[in-house]
Amino acid sequence: MVGESDLIQRYFRHATTARDDVILGIGDDCALLQPPIGQQLAVSMDTLVAGRHFVPDADPEDLGHKALAVSLSDLAAMGATPAWVTLSLTLPTADATWQAWLSCFIQGFSTLALSHQVQLVGGDTTCGPLSITVQAHGYVPPGQAVCRSGARINDAVYVSGTLGDAGLALSAQQGRYVPDTTAQACIQTRLDRPAPRVALGCALRQIAHAAIDVSDGLGADLRHLCTASGVGAQIQAQHLPLSAPVRTYVAQTRDWQLPIRAGDDYELLFTAARADQPRIQQIASDLAVPVTCIGEITAASAVVLTLPDGMTCPLDAGYDHFANSAALPCQR
Amino acid sequence: MVGESDLIQRYFRHATTARDDVILGIGDDCALLQPPIGQQLAVSMDTLVAGRHFVPDADPEDLGHKALAVSLSDLAAMGATPAWVTLSLTLPTADATWQAWLSCFIQGFSTLALSHQVQLVGGDTTCGPLSITVQAHGYVPPGQAVCRSGARINDAVYVSGTLGDAGLALSAQQGRYVPDTTAQACIQTRLDRPAPRVALGCALRQIAHAAIDVSDGLGADLRHLCTASGVGAQIQAQHLPLSAPVRTYVAQTRDWQLPIRAGDDYELLFTAARADQPRIQQIASDLAVPVTCIGEITAASAVVLTLPDGMTCPLDAGYDHFANSAALPCQR
Repeated sequence: MVGESDLIQRYFRHATTARDDVILGIGDDCALLQPPIGQQLAVSMDTLVAGRHFVPDADPEDLGHKALAVSLSDLAAMGATPAWVTLSLTLPTADATWQAWLSCFIQGFSTLALSHQVQLVGGDTTCGPLSITVQAHGYVPPGQAVCRSGARINDAVYVSGTLGDAGLALSAQQGRYVPDTTAQACIQTRLDRPAPRVALGCALRQIAHAAIDVSDGLGADLRHLCTASGVGAQIQAQHLPLSAPVRTYVAQTRDWQLPIRAGDDYELLFTAARADQPRIQQIASDLAVPVTCIGEITAASAVVLTLPDGMTCPLDAGYDHFANSAALPCQR
Repeated sequence: MVGESDLIQRYFRHATTARDDVILGIGDDCALLQPPIGQQLAVSMDTLVAGRHFVPDADPEDLGHKALAVSLSDLAAMGATPAWVTLSLTLPTADATWQAWLSCFIQGFSTLALSHQVQLVGGDTTCGPLSITVQAHGYVPPGQAVCRSGARINDAVYVSGTLGDAGLALSAQQGRYVPDTTAQACIQTRLDRPAPRVALGCALRQIAHAAIDVSDGLGADLRHLCTASGVGAQIQAQHLPLSAPVRTYVAQTRDWQLPIRAGDDYELLFTAARADQPRIQQIASDLAVPVTCIGEITAASAVVLTLPDGMTCPLDAGYDHFANSAALPCQR
């Protein structure tokens, strides 16, 4: 069996870009990093467990991409510029099969890391049930980080990209829905290779009042943001940005819940003053990232969805409750 | 089932000291930290897996202590001052049994964190096979971090505390040795509640040329240090610092391997110029941490142990090989 040091040497040491602010990377007791003078450090740690967050036979290159994307998405939600990342991998064995797996995993991880000029600087490799922990480190000028708690009454609520694609891909994967071939390819990429909205997050510094990334689903994450800010929100269902596959799915099934309850989209949900709408649309245009206004922040404590027919649904349940509910309780 | 947000709120938010340099702690997409101006950031991530690094029914308060101690020990080996820590916990369920477990875990974690003025600033809680990942963050003035690679020929080799206690406790736990009651209590504490040598590590800045913490065992870790430094070492077996229980064990079994091959002691192994011996002994005295000179760095590539009878043993195998070997190959 190949030892831990060998694995690290063989697969990780040259896995990513070399940054000038990394004094010492992989291979010592600690990594040594030189934070930019006067900037604040933003850190986020996420663990993905086989059988919980991904199927055990998931493509390892996709997993490498996704494990990093999830953490970079958290930096994006704060408006932080990504810099360094650490990775702890727990693998069932270090035999040839898992070395091949590791090689593919690192390929997916490194490609995304390179595209964001992020360097893998350290971590751990252990033996046990398959699990991946990533910590991303970025920086942001003092006072410019975008927190969940800054939403203000009458703010417009925006979301980037489209909602429900990853959730629809999961439904298809689990045999609960059969999309056509073109739709399948499109939504599968959204589930397997989410694009963290890093450039958008950084561009929204000093514009967005509050932000969160959509990992648990629009309903749950909007609730998190509203709870942290002590506000409510009213969302218009007909304004939710939906891809063609999700639009088809909703038309066929009349299931308006999917784009609200499904997680894993890793889009940015944020609020800003209505007066800043032109600036936001300019940023979206410059970055070629769709940004849609889906509602507004209210003084009420409730988070409410207005359906196209005028009915309203309270969106006050979290992900766990959504997962167990057959339908949203609706009222006029 | 209690959700992730509830767990974090209930157990983690007030778990540790509140530091002035934490702008935003647990509860947002990222933690926000203000690194001291001009200092370098040292980070180390470690994962402990149930059944691999600890028995699944291990005392959770001990585990909380140890999970943090292991990472603080890495900071100590670099001479970094600990500041912040992140924690990702994977628990089988969030039911009452595991909530009780979590409460004890956090107790052990927090007590050690408080004693080092370390703040828990973020992390993750997921569902799956029991596993703990900790990342410790500290800082060190530029150019003063003590790396593995700095050992120089003719340096004296030092180790703090005593060696083999944790390994002997593990032997006893596994029924391979029966110590007397007093010895049992002493070595068990060393296995369950290792004391990271943080103050010693910081005091050795600008004195030690190279350092590593003894996690894999003296033989393996000295080899790591020598390989990184491109040197060899000669260690005197009769100078190895042994506790009374280990001394008794060695006298009874004539097993000189234990204090060399056993891991989990979390002592500091370091090298320094011979002329600095008085300064090092003064530091050891001031901190009340025993420090023992056990040998010297050589120009050879080999790492060699000289036994009391003059025989020599090459110490060129890593932990995995040691674990599988019945005896060291010895030669005159």
